Parts: sequence; C-alpha cells; structure tokens
Amino acid sequence: MNRQEQPVRPNPDHGVRTPRPRLENLSLSLGKRVRLHRLLYASGPKNGNLLVLPLDQGLEHGPADFFPNPAALNTDYPFRLAVEGNYSAIALGIGLAEKYMEQYAGTIPLILKLNGKTNIADDAEAVSPMFANVEDAVRLGADAVGYTLYIGSPRQDHEILQFQRVRQDCARFGMPIVMWAYPRGRAIDAKGGKGTLYAQDYAARVAEELGADIVKLHEPEADNERSPEPYRSLREDTAERLRRVVRSAGKTMVLFSGGEKNDDDDAVVNKVKLYMESGATGVMFGRNMWLRPYDRALGLTQRVQTMMKSRFGE
Amino acid sequence: MNRQEQPVRPNPDHGVRTPRPRLENLSLSLGKRVRLHRLLYASGPKNGNLLVLPLDQGLEHGPADFFPNPAALNTDYPFRLAVEGNYSAIALGIGLAEKYMEQYAGTIPLILKLNGKTNIADDAEAVSPMFANVEDAVRLGADAVGYTLYIGSPRQDHEILQFQRVRQDCARFGMPIVMWAYPRGRAIDAKGGKGTLYAQDYAARVAEELGADIVKLHEPEADNERSPEPYRSLREDTAERLRRVVRSAGKTMVLFSGGEKNDDDDAVVNKVKLYMESGATGVMFGRNMWLRPYDRALGLTQRVQTMMKSRFGE
Amino acid sequence: MNRQEQPVRPNPDHGVRTPRPRLENLSLSLGKRVRLHRLLYASGPKNGNLLVLPLDQGLEHGPADFFPNPAALNTDYPFRLAVEGNYSAIALGIGLAEKYMEQYAGTIPLILKLNGKTNIADDAEAVSPMFANVEDAVRLGADAVGYTLYIGSPRQDHEILQFQRVRQDCARFGMPIVMWAYPRGRAIDAKGGKGTLYAQDYAARVAEELGADIVKLHEPEADNERSPEPYRSLREDTAERLRRVVRSAGKTMVLFSGGEKNDDDDAVVNKVKLYMESGATGVMFGRNMWLRPYDRALGLTQRVQTMMKSRFGE
Amino acid sequence: MNRQEQPVRPNPDHGVRTPRPRLENLSLSLGKRVRLHRLLYASGPKNGNLLVLPLDQGLEHGPADFFPNPAALNTDYPFRLAVEGNYSAIALGIGLAEKYMEQYAGTIPLILKLNGKTNIADDAEAVSPMFANVEDAVRLGADAVGYTLYIGSPRQDHEILQFQRVRQDCARFGMPIVMWAYPRGRAIDAKGGKGTLYAQDYAARVAEELGADIVKLHEPEADNERSPEPYRSLREDTAERLRRVVRSAGKTMVLFSGGEKNDDDDAVVNKVKLYMESGATGVMFGRNMWLRPYDRALGLTQRVQTMMKSRFGE
Amino acid sequence: MNRQEQPVRPNPDHGVRTPRPRLENLSLSLGKRVRLHRLLYASGPKNGNLLVLPLDQGLEHGPADFFPNPAALNTDYPFRLAVEGNYSAIALGIGLAEKYMEQYAGTIPLILKLNGKTNIADDAEAVSPMFANVEDAVRLGADAVGYTLYIGSPRQDHEILQFQRVRQDCARFGMPIVMWAYPRGRAIDAKGGKGTLYAQDYAARVAEELGADIVKLHEPEADNERSPEPYRSLREDTAERLRRVVRSAGKTMVLFSGGEKNDDDDAVVNKVKLYMESGATGVMFGRNMWLRPYDRALGLTQRVQTMMKSRFGE
Repeated sequence: MNRQEQPVRPNPDHGVRTPRPRLENLSLSLGKRVRLHRLLYASGPKNGNLLVLPLDQGLEHGPADFFPNPAALNTDYPFRLAVEGNYSAIALGIGLAEKYMEQYAGTIPLILKLNGKTNIADDAEAVSPMFANVEDAVRLGADAVGYTLYIGSPRQDHEILQFQRVRQDCARFGMPIVMWAYPRGRAIDAKGGKGTLYAQDYAARVAEELGADIVKLHEPEADNERSPEPYRSLREDTAERLRRVVRSAGKTMVLFSGGEKNDDDDAVVNKVKLYMESGATGVMFGRNMWLRPYDRALGLTQRVQTMMKSRFGE
Repeated sequence: MNRQEQPVRPNPDHGVRTPRPRLENLSLSLGKRVRLHRLLYASGPKNGNLLVLPLDQGLEHGPADFFPNPAALNTDYPFRLAVEGNYSAIALGIGLAEKYMEQYAGTIPLILKLNGKTNIADDAEAVSPMFANVEDAVRLGADAVGYTLYIGSPRQDHEILQFQRVRQDCARFGMPIVMWAYPRGRAIDAKGGKGTLYAQDYAARVAEELGADIVKLHEPEADNERSPEPYRSLREDTAERLRRVVRSAGKTMVLFSGGEKNDDDDAVVNKVKLYMESGATGVMFGRNMWLRPYDRALGLTQRVQTMMKSRFGE
Repeated sequence: MNRQEQPVRPNPDHGVRTPRPRLENLSLSLGKRVRLHRLLYASGPKNGNLLVLPLDQGLEHGPADFFPNPAALNTDYPFRLAVEGNYSAIALGIGLAEKYMEQYAGTIPLILKLNGKTNIADDAEAVSPMFANVEDAVRLGADAVGYTLYIGSPRQDHEILQFQRVRQDCARFGMPIVMWAYPRGRAIDAKGGKGTLYAQDYAARVAEELGADIVKLHEPEADNERSPEPYRSLREDTAERLRRVVRSAGKTMVLFSGGEKNDDDDAVVNKVKLYMESGATGVMFGRNMWLRPYDRALGLTQRVQTMMKSRFGE
Repeated sequence: MNRQEQPVRPNPDHGVRTPRPRLENLSLSLGKRVRLHRLLYASGPKNGNLLVLPLDQGLEHGPADFFPNPAALNTDYPFRLAVEGNYSAIALGIGLAEKYMEQYAGTIPLILKLNGKTNIADDAEAVSPMFANVEDAVRLGADAVGYTLYIGSPRQDHEILQFQRVRQDCARFGMPIVMWAYPRGRAIDAKGGKGTLYAQDYAARVAEELGADIVKLHEPEADNERSPEPYRSLREDTAERLRRVVRSAGKTMVLFSGGEKNDDDDAVVNKVKLYMESGATGVMFGRNMWLRPYDRALGLTQRVQTMMKSRFGE
Repeated sequence: MNRQEQPVRPNPDHGVRTPRPRLENLSLSLGKRVRLHRLLYASGPKNGNLLVLPLDQGLEHGPADFFPNPAALNTDYPFRLAVEGNYSAIALGIGLAEKYMEQYAGTIPLILKLNGKTNIADDAEAVSPMFANVEDAVRLGADAVGYTLYIGSPRQDHEILQFQRVRQDCARFGMPIVMWAYPRGRAIDAKGGKGTLYAQDYAARVAEELGADIVKLHEPEADNERSPEPYRSLREDTAERLRRVVRSAGKTMVLFSGGEKNDDDDAVVNKVKLYMESGATGVMFGRNMWLRPYDRALGLTQRVQTMMKSRFGE
C-alpha cells in the first residue's frame, strides 16, 4: 500500500473500463490522504468502502421528512445509529454538529456539510449558500467537507466561484471534499430533468474536473425525449448507466444516494450491491436508514456492512 | 448543575418528546455559556426562563406602532420597564442602544439586534440587511445578538451567507445568537403563508441546523389548503402545534413572540403559560407590554414573572 | 454643562413631549462630542442651533438648479457666503471640498457628503452610491459626514448595509453622522409619496434606530388617500406634523431642509422659526440661500441668525 | 507662478465667467501637481494647453474603426505620431501600453485608461468595467489615469462606487484623473440623448463634484423636445454651449473630443480653435488624427500645435 | 536573439502587414519570458510554434464529447498523447491537473485553465466563473494560465473585472495568459453570430487591448446580413479573413482552435498549414486529436509537427 511502490501506469485499453479509484493510486496532499485513509480504512467497513449517514434533510426539505419516524428529529438518533452501526462517517451541518456531537466526539468521523437551502422556493434558479466554511470543519475535527453544487443552474457562476474558495481552503488545510453534484434549474428541466443519465453523467464529470475528491450522485434514470443527443438515443440498462457515470467520474470516488425511503430491506441491500458492482466506492443513505425504527435501521446497516466487507473488500 | 456530572444520554424513546434544552446539557463555548448563564440565571426570572422585551418595531413597522401609546416612542420607557420589570434582557438595535442605554448600563442585559428593514416595500423578496455586527455587540457589552433570517425568501441565499459570517463572529467572540426565524416571501405565501405550522415548523428546524442558540418563533396557526402535505392534512390543536415546533427546534431554545397587542391581561398571561407548557424557554413580548400604560405594563410583567417562577422553574 | 453633573432622568410623562436633544445629555464618544461641540457651540449661532449651507444640488439635480443664479456655479460663492454669513457648516462632496476649500480652511466647518447620484434615471429603485468615505472626511479635517439613505427603496438592503460601514467607520474615528433620510422608490410612491407625514415620520425613526447623530428631514405634508393608516386619518396641522417627526427622531437632532427656492424673505424666516419652535436643532437651506444674489443671501442669513440667537439659544 | 504668492480670491462677479483653471491656482497634492505640470508644461504645447492622442477605440468600437486607415491597427503608428507630433500625452489601455510602449518609454507621457467595454451589447444599461487599476498606472510610469463614467446609466451606482476607489487610489499615489464623462443609458436617451447640452452640462458638473482633475466632454448639441427644462427652451449657439459646459466643469480642466473623422483639415483646426476660445484646456482627438495617412496626421497635428501655442499660451 | 540588440523599429508601412509576434521583440517581464520561452523553444516544435492539446470539453460540453472515443474519458489518454506526441503544452482544469499529472510532472508543460462552465443553460448571458486562480497555477508548476472571456456578453462587465484580477496576478507572478476570446451572448447572436469575421476580429483586438499574451480564436466565417458594416459588405476568402484577425491581434500570439472533429487527416493538416501561413503562432486542437484512436491521433500529431518544423520554423 506504499504509494511509491505502485505507480499508476497508463491503462493499455486507454481507460474504457476505469477501475475504481484506490487511495494508493491517487495524487493527494498529505492532509487529504490522512483524512481519506481514516474514512476508508479506519472506520466503517475499513476495506476502502464508504458507508455514510447523511442528515441534511431537515434543512433541505424541512421537518416533513421526519414524519414517518419522529424519533429521528432528535439528532441523537442518527448519531447513535452512526456509531453503533459503525458507519464510515456522518454528514451534517454546523448546527447539528456543534449541538449533538460532543458526546460522540472521536467515535464517528464527521463530514461537515458547508452549504444548503430550504426547498420553500422552487429550484428554477437554485443556488446553495454556504452556512459554514472549511475552517469550521477544521475547528470541529471533521475529516471531510460536503458541498452541494447545483450543476447547470442559471446561477452556476455563483456556485462555481463559491466552490473555488472551498477547494482552495481544502487544499490549504488538507481537507477532502465530497461534492453533492446535483443537476438543478430550469435549463436541466428543459433537457430531460435532474435524474437522467445525461444529467448525472454530466454531474460526475463536473465533479472530476472541478476538483472534488468524492462525488455524491443519484442512480441515473433512462433519458427521455427532452434529453440531448447522444443520450436520448441510448438504450442502456440500470447497471450500464451506473457504470457509465462511475467512468465519467474518473478518479473521483462515487457515492450513490438512497433517495426516498424504500420499505423493503432486501431491495435496499440489492441496490447497494448493484452500486458497488458498478464501481461505486460506497453509498450515502439517509432516509432509507433513519426513517426506519432504530433496531430495523441498525439491522439493515449491518446487512449492508456484511455485504460490503465480503464482496468488495480490497 | 455541573456539566461534567450530568452528561447527556441518548433518550431511550429516541427523542419523540425532546425535553426543553437546559444550559447544563448544551455543548457551548465558554463565552456563550457565560453569557447565556447571565440571561437565564442572573437576570429576569433567574430560573432558566427568559422574558425578553424587544424594541425593533420602530424600524420594522415605523412609528405607527407607537400610536396607541406615544410614551413608548421615548426609548427611556422600554428601558425603564425592562429594568423595573426585571426582564431577562432588552432587544434592540444599534441606534437605540447607543443613545439610551448609558444610564441603564449593567442593570439590564442587551440583545443587540444586528439587522432589519422597513416595511415600506413588500416582502415578496424580503431580505434583512445588517446595520450592526457582532463586534458592535461586544463593544456595547451585549450578552447576545439578534438576527432576522427570512426563511424561504427568494433571496435566502443572501440571508444565509450573511448569517454565516454572524455565526462565525459569534463563535469567535463567544456570543450567543438569537435568530428571529421568520418565513417570508412569495414562495411561502404560495404555500400557505408565514403563520402556518408548516412555515413555523420549518423555521424552527432551520434555526437548529444553521446554528442558532435561541430561536424566536410565532405561535403556529393551523395549515390551510395551500400548505404542503403532510401539514395540510394535520389536525392538531394549538398546544400540539406549539409542542411540535419546539420539538423541531431541538436543542435550540424557543421564544414565542407576542405579536399584535391584546388588551386582555388574562389572555396574555394564559398565552405565556401555554407557551411555557409547550416547552418554550420563554417569550419575547413587545407591543403587548410597552403599548400598555406604564403601570399596567409593569403589572402584567409581574404576573408573567410570577407564573414563570412558580411553575416553570428548574 | 458638565455631562457628569446633569444625568439624564427618565421623563415623568414618559416622553410624550421629548425635549430637543442637548449635547450634554447625549451618549457620545469623545471624538463625536468634540466635533459636535464645534458645530453647535463654536461656529454658526454658537448656542446649540445649527445653520448649515448645503451644496450637493449640482450632482443631485444637475447645473439646472443654478440657472436662477449662475454665480453660485462657482463654488467660491457658497464658501464665501458660509464664511461671511457665519454658518455652522458647509455640506458638500469630495470634489468641491478638495477644489475650493483650501483658502477657507479652518474658517468654516465641513460636513463631507459621502454619497449621491444624478437624477437622470428615475427614483423607482433609488440607491445612492458612495463617492467618498469616512477616511476622506478625516483627511480633509471635516467635522461630520453626510449620508443619504433612501428609505423604503426596493434596494434599501444595499443602502442599509453601506450605511453600516459608514456608521462603524464613524464610531472608529469619532465622526458625527448627518443622515439625509429621504423616503424614495416605487413603494413609497404607492403609499402616498415621499413628502407625507407617514414618509417623513418613518424616516425620522429610521435615522434614530440606525444610529444617525443628526437627521435631515423635509417639512412633512399632510397624508393623502394612498397613505397607510393611522396616518391617512390624521388631521394635524403643519406645526403638529413637525413636532411629531421631531419626537420620532428621539435623541437624533433634526435639521429641516428648505426645498425649492422661495423668493419671499419673510416667509423663509417664518419657516425657520416654525421649525425651531417645533423642536428642530436647525435648518439646512441651500437653494433658498445661494440662489439669491449674494447680498440678499447674506441679509437673509443674518435675519435667520438673529432669530436663532434671540429665541432658541440655550 | 508660486502658488503661495498668488492665492485665489473670490471673483467679484461671483464666477459667472469662470476663467480657465490654471495649475498654480488649483488645490492639488504634490504628486498630482508634479504629474500635471509634466503634462501641461513639459510636453505637448508646453504652455498649459493639452493635446492628447487617445487610442481606446479598438476596444470600444472594435477593429471596424481602423478600416479607413489599417496602418493604425499597429499601435506603433499612434505611438510614433504622438512622439513625432509632440503630443502632451497618449491615452490607451493596459494591453497596448505594456506591449508597445517600451521603445517610447520616457518620450511621451502616458494616460492609462483603466476601464472600457465593447459596443456589442447596447448601452441601455451601460457600465464600464475596470481592466486595470491605479497601481498599474504607477507601475508603468503613467502621468494620469483615464476613467469612463457612464453618467445617468441605470447602473450609475456601480460606476460611481468603482470610481470612488479609483479616486482614492489616485489621492494615495498623487495620480491625476481624467474622466471620460459620458452620458449613457436609456434614461438619458429618454431625456434628449447623450449629445445634448443638458447631457454634456450635467456630465461636466458630475466630473467636478466627484473629483476629476480633467474631464473629457463632447461638443454639446442643441437640446431637443425630449430634453428637460430649462434646457429645452434655451436658444444658445455652439460657442455659448461650449462656454456653458466649461463653466459647469468649474476647476476641472476640459478636453473636448473630436468624435468621428472629419476629412477637412481646416474644419478640424477651426474646431480646436473654437474649443480653446471657449475655455477648454485642450482636446483629445483620435480618429481625426490617426485615421489620416501618417504625414497628413502629422501635418494636421502641427497646425493644431501652432495655433495652440500662438493664441492660447499662458 | 538578444532583446537588447534587436530593438523593435516602427514598420515603414505602418503595420498593414504585421509580422507574427516573435518572443525577442515582445515587451515581457522576466517570468513571462522564461515561461513563454519554455513553451515556444523548449517543448513541442521548439522553433517558436505552438501545438497545444486542450482538454476542457468535459466541463464545457459534458461527457457527450467523448462518445466517439470513450478511451479519452480517462485523462491518462490525453496526457500520454501530449507527452508522446511532443506537444508544446496540455491545457486543462484544476481537477484533471491535480488528479492525473503527477506521473507526467516535468515532461509536458501545463496551461492551467482557470474558468469554465457547463453548457446546460444557454449562452444568452454567458459568464465563465473561475474555478481556479493564478496561485493554483504557480503551485502546480504551470507555464501559463488559460482564461475564457465571453466577449460582448451582457455580463461582460463581470468577465472583464474578473480578468483584471487574473492579469494582475499574472503580472505579479510572471505567468503568461492565454485568452480563449469567445464572442458570446444574445447581442453577438443579433449581430451575425459568434463565428463571423466581425465577431472573431473584435475578439482578437479585445485580447490585444486587455493584455493577453496569447489568444485562442476560431477560424472566422464570412459575415452575414445581420453583421454590422463594414464587415457585412466585405468579400474576403478564408485566408484573407485569417490574416485579418491575426493583424487585429497585433502583438498577441494567435492560436486557432480545431472545433469539431474532422475525420479526414489530410484536411486537418491542411487546415493547420493555412492557419500557420496566415500568421498564427500555432493551434490548439483537442477533439480533432483525442477523439481519434490513440495511434491515429499520434500519427496526425506527427504530421502536424513535421509541417510546423519544416515550413514555419524561425
């Protein structure tokens, strides 16, 4: 696992099938390497896979998201789940981190989410303002920061400029960046919507080119008649679409999100398996975890852990 | 009351009924703890409840608000009332603080309101500019700052970014933040209006997630046909709605505002009682106090004090 | 006149009739006190009244304002008038100050106007950009700065934020602030216009709450059918309206402006008398002075001085 | 010519006929005085008149301006003309200065133009962004900076704020400012257009009030039915209009521009004569010079020089 | 080749035919000279010509651009091609540089692209936000920075201001600037479109005037009926148009881009030949290279190299 001994070599097939990024093959500053190593090999599955528990829905969607399981409104619930379920990290904002993390300090890595917004206004010109910065993350002992970039929004210029400063602060402090790469806005709606392969594939590449270390994507849907070519004419199944966006992400590790709650535990486990087989480095499942009663959430977590350890370990 | 001796423990029912936040259970910097202790235990009811007298209506609504009691136009009136009525703090802006507080210095804690606007233009794209900053508060010996966040406004990105700097300055100086969490703008109007449970519940959670220490909310009204689900279908009474927003505020202490003047003293006292029973840490009543003749205002204040001390002390 | 010996006491009638602010009763930093003392007691009438000669009309209205008296286009004219007429101060912008003041240096206090605009575009979204800052004022030996705030403009957020920085610089340098508190914009037009009591009364309170030391207002007109209640139903005469806005300005000294030129000297003197009787600290008359031939302007000035000294001295 | 010995005295006729500003009568910092002396008395006509060769048309209008004389596309052409024609200064932007001036360094003073734009989009909301700053001018050894202010544009607030920083940097570095005072935007179009006496007269006064040392204006046209009063009713000839704007510019030296190319040399010389007789300090003629073949341009330059020296020397 | 010994002399024909800029004749800081020498004489053809391989299409157009040759999605492909094909430099953004360049460090000069955007929203008000800055380029050992300026966009003021800071940082660090001078936005569409001679000719001059060292242009198309005069009436062939824009670029070295993929190798080579004969300093061909299979791309590269060396060497 010594980086010096395993130099990257140009792939003889010129990268049609990019292997999943491995920490030892990545060009990283020492600080980023230390913190990513902690996330990949010292917590969670500890074999290079990532299982992240996010809790930014209260800001992004409001308390409505918690109606199916009000217990999760108390942030002690997800913190307990993250610790007892042995997650790689918990991802949340500055308010929840400062208010609830004290008693869990050191027992679960923190991905500090830096920006966010409510969903009261629509997303036609979506922009995600920062409510914390990289220095906050350093101050709280976080191992990464999370940043939402609304790709293709009419205000993408604001978003990209804001991200530049985050990236540079991260370079300065050796802090890894997880980009929530979310296509949004009236232009992407006119081109098929935020969920298509076209949108997710573009998002993956943007994360790679702008300098994210990890990108959070959604499972890409098939394109539709509003999608631009060549995507509109593609006929790929789910697994092919997943592999495509992983390839477009290049050396950026991919996490797939869980989206809305699915009550079928088997279906959730199979989803994770499919994502991992497609080259993902892990998943970031929130509502599919903390909207279950605590014991079921813990049980499902353990099934995912077992699967991640047995089949996708390095 | 030693924080070390009473560590927070995850609630066995996973927080469905969050107990009211208590200072000794909160994660706070030393400076915030010192100042909040002063507000909660060294002034006002002195038993962990907060009784705050606000005076920002002259800027927000104009002198019209004072027509029922012109005496209050002279800021000596509310200062005298705050001191003689033994309030926890007075909350007002930089101009009034600098001009009127000198002779009351040290006798009444100050919550310096940092931003505000007139109501001449409508609130479709409401934004509340800063007219003072945290350093002003430190310079004036304030024990907290007040910040209005217009939740859901089309310009919420500006508001949230501006709040970030306030929160960081507060972290630097150990200054508690009271957030006036006010849903505003055309989007919230289209979703039922600023006064609904949907709006107030979301506001409570935003305060919690963005890092407020105390949040000022309004008594939530029932939702209407424009409110989003699941709120639209909820059938909760006033007490249930109040408890719900207090739960959504999590570890953020809740103050309910008094709104427009109610001439019935008993009704006002009962209102406060209901709020306190619902888990509020206190109230911030302005017009219901200083629009009364001085002696009646003082008398009403004392009734609220008595009730707060006898039934909700720690 | 020792501030320590005459502490402010809460007014027994709770401030319905606020006495005119007196320097010795105001809470002021040493620098502001020094400079205000110079304006109030060491120049002009020297008895606490202010007689200020403004010259910002060339920027605000263009050279058209000078057509009735082209001599005033040469800024030596108002400077001479200010010196020979023994004004309390002259108020103008950076260009005129730097170009014309050298030979009058030390003989007439300067109020450096910091912001302004042309009137070529309309005022629907009025905003007044800064063309100088407080450091310029310090550098030129000014005794106060002037700042125009367009109250109620759709861009009031920009205006208020900009004013915050001016106020803070003034706090740092001990520089008094004269606020030109001007209601402007399409919202105030829709609510009765910029000249009504509603508008001027609100402006007075905004100046008080945002931290102005002195506020320049216009004589309030009666409200009209577009004015909001309770103003719409008020039936007050000119003197009552003047007293009302002075009360709303609280501890902020009020200067009334002269507005357009009135050729009747007696009428002008009576106007000033009425303003002073209503509690104003002084007047800021430009066109009513420098649009007169020099000798008539000087004569009118002396009549105002005499009246100010004989009846309103402290 | 010792400034101390010739103090400015108030003009007995109160300035109806302002004499042309003379360096020894102006209030200037030492740095500005040094540099303006170099422009007025050590280069060009050397008798207090200014003959400036501008070359910003390539950016402002595109290469189309050079079609009548492609030779001028090579910036060596105007530099040679400026040196051989003994101009007071050449005025151009950062790219041309850095790329072409090296071999002429020290032989021709530079007025570094700091802002500009293309004319591809229309001027309804014209704004002129900075592409260089005062430090660039200092670094290149310039003797003045040039700044375009679009007077009356809907975005004049941006323009004026930007100019404030330029003016302050110039105060700091002792750098004279030449303002291209250009009325622009839909509001001035609605009031008669950018070329009227109303527009040019206002522009002259704005330059004076905002702190320009020299202002570049256009020959004012007669007003039209869209012009505001009192201009609309004025009946002045060209010479009267020219004298009027020079008076409005006060102590700001006026340069008139040449506008589009006029092929008649005599007409050009007569134009300059008229401008000088009207009180201008000089002219800034670009296309009327460098769109002529080199030898004709040089010849015309010499005729202008001769006229300036023989009739308007100090 | 000693700059001191070969001073530039004004061209006797006044620059109608500007010779291609040569490094020894340019006014450059030492740092810029060192880095440009490396690009022009120490890599690529090494005889003053530039052959640059760009890879910013993944951000600008999305992964769709790679569909004809998915191998190029792996950035190792273009890096290998640049190294083995002996390009003068590779041009790409911060993410790709940091992630893929480590093993090629020192073997291929880097032009770090500083700004970019997606093409999801249309270009009516195009603006290209910065995602990296000049310090990033210095930190990565780059030999130039790339900056896209959307010429004529309604938001050109933002673009030009942003470019000012880049130019100044480049002056500070001695870093050459390559400007992607791209006409864009609804105004240029209304005037004939981004590809016309009018548009490209203006773009060339803007690069020259704003201070670019190298400008990337597209082959100019003939103008059309929407183009402004005098362009609309021009009847020039491709070679004449190319020479015209090179002349307008003055002392700014011109690179022509390749645009969309052309499958005919001979046609590509002839295109390059035409560009070089027209006075270009080189080409920046991306899709015409890396969308070919690796061996064909390498072969085509070598043909271009041979041609550049044999006919256009200095």
